[in-house]
Amino acid sequence: MSSAVVLSETAVDGVVAREFVVDEIPGMLWSPADPNASRPLVLLGHGGGQHKSAPSLVARARRYVMNCGYAVAAIDAPGFGDRHKSEHDLKFEADISRLRAAGEPVVPLIVQENAERAKRAVPEWRATLDALQEELGAGSVGYWGVSLGAMIGIPFVAAEPRVNAAVFGLAGYERLAEAAARITVPVEFVLQWDDELVPRESGLALFDAFGSAEKTLHANPGPHMGVPRFEVDSSERFFARHLGVVC
Amino acid sequence: MSSAVVLSETAVDGVVAREFVVDEIPGMLWSPADPNASRPLVLLGHGGGQHKSAPSLVARARRYVMNCGYAVAAIDAPGFGDRHKSEHDLKFEADISRLRAAGEPVVPLIVQENAERAKRAVPEWRATLDALQEELGAGSVGYWGVSLGAMIGIPFVAAEPRVNAAVFGLAGYERLAEAAARITVPVEFVLQWDDELVPRESGLALFDAFGSAEKTLHANPGPHMGVPRFEVDSSERFFARHLGVVC
Repeated sequence: MSSAVVLSETAVDGVVAREFVVDEIPGMLWSPADPNASRPLVLLGHGGGQHKSAPSLVARARRYVMNCGYAVAAIDAPGFGDRHKSEHDLKFEADISRLRAAGEPVVPLIVQENAERAKRAVPEWRATLDALQEELGAGSVGYWGVSLGAMIGIPFVAAEPRVNAAVFGLAGYERLAEAAARITVPVEFVLQWDDELVPRESGLALFDAFGSAEKTLHANPGPHMGVPRFEVDSSERFFARHLGVVC
Repeated sequence: MSSAVVLSETAVDGVVAREFVVDEIPGMLWSPADPNASRPLVLLGHGGGQHKSAPSLVARARRYVMNCGYAVAAIDAPGFGDRHKSEHDLKFEADISRLRAAGEPVVPLIVQENAERAKRAVPEWRATLDALQEELGAGSVGYWGVSLGAMIGIPFVAAEPRVNAAVFGLAGYERLAEAAARITVPVEFVLQWDDELVPRESGLALFDAFGSAEKTLHANPGPHMGVPRFEVDSSERFFARHLGVVC
């Protein structure tokens, strides 16, 4: 098992942010001054085109730390952020640009690519969780991720018994239904009613597929990138219900 | 315009409960010691078979008063609680009992009856709001009601420009879509994923029908009567977002 190597540490308004590396996976850990096993750990899976330090991810992490007392971690998904981009990753980005320029549909390629990416990302998340728990102790764990973060997170949580509750969203039935059916922990699932990437019926079918006795669907009007800000608040209360709050 | 006649007043743990009558409509008003126009007013529409003082309604009213500082009012729907039961109401109850005993479907009769009941209930809610605002002043107004409370509340809010935000749920497309399309204020809409009275597709179609730019769907597994308790908490935050909170 690899340990986390801390590269830097900064503190802003009581939230300590640590850059770390596990094997070659770069990550961030946000926490109050004293992260330890009495604090739940929430893992954040970023969306496509984002990375572990994208502004919306950092803002979410800081809220979970400040309002709930959690430790919060994010890693770069394969091909994003500080990760090495393979020939394949570069070709994918070029193909997407070409399709977009030609006004052709990009969704099938994104879905196929992200399904492949998830296969690589799941063991990386598990190794990261090993390393973080070695450091912090083995407390309760939550996972949040929508879009690419759900395409990776759903197979990750299905495979990972240490995760106690998860927020997913902006993803459809295809390629994810089988993993969703194996998830039994509480799930909050966020859809956009007018999502141009995830057909409404496909998103609703994925919600239906989760094996969890407690699952709650939140749907709001608007496009893929338009999840309302109050859903951050809602995810916070979902985690508070299931992981507790450290005041 | 009729005034509200107060019949009784009791106070428990800082929440004052007043029984009142507007014309012949019996109601309850819960509030902090000083209800006035600076406090939003939330109207509660009870479900079928319930009434203005059903325990779940009283508990909800007390929460909104204690946590948000609102004034909260409920009235008995036609044929329920302290309302006079007409020959027709008694025949309806007998018909439902007979159908239930025979194991025959009751939903079509309930839907038809409640649509008729809503026609009578809408002007009653408007008269009640007139009387309450005469007393309290004209502040912002919310409406909460699921099942029968939505079948009455949706046409009421569609007709009533004084309502600023509404929580509805456990109701389907049929007979309500046209009124829903005329509603433009923020709506939180609560469905049960396995509702034995409201088919899933019909509930989703009603959510789709609301004319509101901000509308949010919450769906949870389980039967008609199984809405999870955390949705009370969620409705409170929804009202806080749109009506403000009086601390």
